[in-house]
Amino acid sequence: MPRTYDRDSVEFSRVLAFTDGLFAIAMTLLIVAVTVPNISDDNSIRDLADGLNDLTPDFTSFFISFAVIGRYWLAHHLFISLLARMDQGFIGLNLIYLAFIAFLPFPTALLGEYFNNPLTIVIYAVSVGIVSGMEVVLLRHAYRRDLLQNKPTPEVYRFGVIASLTPVFFFALSIPIAFVSTILAVLVWFLTAPFGGWLQKRAPEGAESLFG
Amino acid sequence: MPRTYDRDSVEFSRVLAFTDGLFAIAMTLLIVAVTVPNISDDNSIRDLADGLNDLTPDFTSFFISFAVIGRYWLAHHLFISLLARMDQGFIGLNLIYLAFIAFLPFPTALLGEYFNNPLTIVIYAVSVGIVSGMEVVLLRHAYRRDLLQNKPTPEVYRFGVIASLTPVFFFALSIPIAFVSTILAVLVWFLTAPFGGWLQKRAPEGAESLFG
Amino acid sequence: MPRTYDRDSVEFSRVLAFTDGLFAIAMTLLIVAVTVPNISDDNSIRDLADGLNDLTPDFTSFFISFAVIGRYWLAHHLFISLLARMDQGFIGLNLIYLAFIAFLPFPTALLGEYFNNPLTIVIYAVSVGIVSGMEVVLLRHAYRRDLLQNKPTPEVYRFGVIASLTPVFFFALSIPIAFVSTILAVLVWFLTAPFGGWLQKRAPEGAESLFG
Amino acid sequence: MPRTYDRDSVEFSRVLAFTDGLFAIAMTLLIVAVTVPNISDDNSIRDLADGLNDLTPDFTSFFISFAVIGRYWLAHHLFISLLARMDQGFIGLNLIYLAFIAFLPFPTALLGEYFNNPLTIVIYAVSVGIVSGMEVVLLRHAYRRDLLQNKPTPEVYRFGVIASLTPVFFFALSIPIAFVSTILAVLVWFLTAPFGGWLQKRAPEGAESLFG
Repeated sequence: MPRTYDRDSVEFSRVLAFTDGLFAIAMTLLIVAVTVPNISDDNSIRDLADGLNDLTPDFTSFFISFAVIGRYWLAHHLFISLLARMDQGFIGLNLIYLAFIAFLPFPTALLGEYFNNPLTIVIYAVSVGIVSGMEVVLLRHAYRRDLLQNKPTPEVYRFGVIASLTPVFFFALSIPIAFVSTILAVLVWFLTAPFGGWLQKRAPEGAESLFG
Repeated sequence: MPRTYDRDSVEFSRVLAFTDGLFAIAMTLLIVAVTVPNISDDNSIRDLADGLNDLTPDFTSFFISFAVIGRYWLAHHLFISLLARMDQGFIGLNLIYLAFIAFLPFPTALLGEYFNNPLTIVIYAVSVGIVSGMEVVLLRHAYRRDLLQNKPTPEVYRFGVIASLTPVFFFALSIPIAFVSTILAVLVWFLTAPFGGWLQKRAPEGAESLFG
Repeated sequence: MPRTYDRDSVEFSRVLAFTDGLFAIAMTLLIVAVTVPNISDDNSIRDLADGLNDLTPDFTSFFISFAVIGRYWLAHHLFISLLARMDQGFIGLNLIYLAFIAFLPFPTALLGEYFNNPLTIVIYAVSVGIVSGMEVVLLRHAYRRDLLQNKPTPEVYRFGVIASLTPVFFFALSIPIAFVSTILAVLVWFLTAPFGGWLQKRAPEGAESLFG
Repeated sequence: MPRTYDRDSVEFSRVLAFTDGLFAIAMTLLIVAVTVPNISDDNSIRDLADGLNDLTPDFTSFFISFAVIGRYWLAHHLFISLLARMDQGFIGLNLIYLAFIAFLPFPTALLGEYFNNPLTIVIYAVSVGIVSGMEVVLLRHAYRRDLLQNKPTPEVYRFGVIASLTPVFFFALSIPIAFVSTILAVLVWFLTAPFGGWLQKRAPEGAESLFG
């Protein structure tokens, strides 16, 4: 019989403390990649303004990635609030999920440095797609191993999988667009939020328990 | 009905664990921007002393930013101690607030590198101003959605908004002063603390519950 | 009488919060060592693809080290779940164990930079070996000072020591192999997981309580 | 009446979560300062061995600082276990204490780079001395504001102050020695631990409650 940990156990909260710590660090490290501009005249306002202007893609990619990782943290938070217990398999899959969260500062730094290079968008989109894919794997595992507090109906479960894959769709769509315009591709990413809201209104009965 | 999390729920404490983690990392990362001086003679006390002397603005900006972020952490801590519950909207707004906390190591590094450049002061002051603004947004949301343990009177609420905006006033004031002297501008920032104390003595009845 | 802390004390959970924080940071810092490639034509897909291709060993060593440290976190998690209490000696030994966990980003960066250099494999293997050795020291201390919830039989305890030393065996084996091929040496590391599974099936009666 | 937080309040544990997070980050960041050596022939074992050999002071200063900060974490942990409650003043003083903990990665990096420069030892010793001084300030505040679970006798309190100042004595002693030999100065630091043990055996009656 596999070992499971109930919601009120030390082990359950340790997994969350570890997860929250990793998310917090990944989000704070995003700014470390942005280095202070190097200017010739230290006291020149114009030189510094020019130097900071060159950092626009860095600031943009910091806030985009903060929003992206923050959105995953919110989703993880909501998902965990539905769990009654965890098993060792879930903890292991959660670690794989976190490996890709911890990886995200790299594509973010890439985006800050080469914002206009289509390959940057491809790498960013694939990285984020893997995170969403792992989210589905976690949901599937929780559903099959009966870790949820209220087992959803198959219909609600299928809806949950589709909702989790929404970002995959928009990030995949952004890949061909990136070869036309990288700015347009990044704007496509922002469609995820309104579409998610639209989808939620079409949720089957009983899905509120899953998506609040 | 929007999902809410009570004070004693796993979700409430996860938000705090995440928040505290992010604050702790942002404050510790401040020192990473300070690089060891590069000197020609490794064993020369004089050379190293000169090298460290050049780092004075870096040390100054480390301690200023540690104090600034620490003050926000104290205020956040005090504010959260008044909450009875959180809702999803509050958690989302808290994330936006944290994005600007996580951003602060950048203006700090800028201050360490270009202490005498007025633009540095402007950027620092604007960043801090946004954090204080988000503090007011959080307070307003908690007040309107009835998340506070003891609902304050409108008078006490207005006082809370004014108290939260105190740093905005002094940081805004420092911007024109920076074009005369950046040291003077930084000194203006330090007026926030005594003014906050003076303001607290003028608090309306019932405000102790909000500001202890 | 030495001071001990029960499972439900503030002190017990502080040690875990600190430990989980350190693990989360060590695992997230692994990506900081991977720097964005420097290419001549910012918008050239080919140049960026070449630049990223040169980073293959960095990505490989990021994921290997995330898996290695993640595996230690899982083992630590499982081990702590068996403890009834901690004493000051255990907390001190846990700190020494964590010093070597915190050190692992260095051999990881080394592996990313000099993947084909046999010395890199030696240093990585020795570092990981010390962590496993400290794991045994922690188990031994917990066994002798009666900190475990259910005291295992001597046979089960010996089995636990052997299981903890499994990685030491494979990492030691990889050292001579590294002088033939470093890729082969790294592949040997991956034998740890299936061998651990095989070993667990041969566990003496009562060991489930130790290794679930 | 100043606001106080009991041992079992959300606020008490938030201060600890924040503190433990900051300690964990400061200790893990120590390794970031150690950069992988730059060698001409990537596959040469000899070149890499030479490069790593040059890093000996970096490794030494990593482990020394991990031990030093770890020792302060242990002391903080023990001290907090004696508290019945915290007040706002204590939380503020704790932040100042943490500012100097967060600063320690800088003197550590300095020690790794300029191990033989006496000024490095002076800066390291002064930094550590301030941390110990702040420890006394925290103890004094807790004693005067009656925050301890069992109020110690004046005699026990005085003993606690002396015990906290032990590192100050040895670090101060190391400063003149550094101008003769920096290695000797560092060795003096290691006398803190055995002296602390010796002192504990001379503790007045009732001090066990303070120093377990």
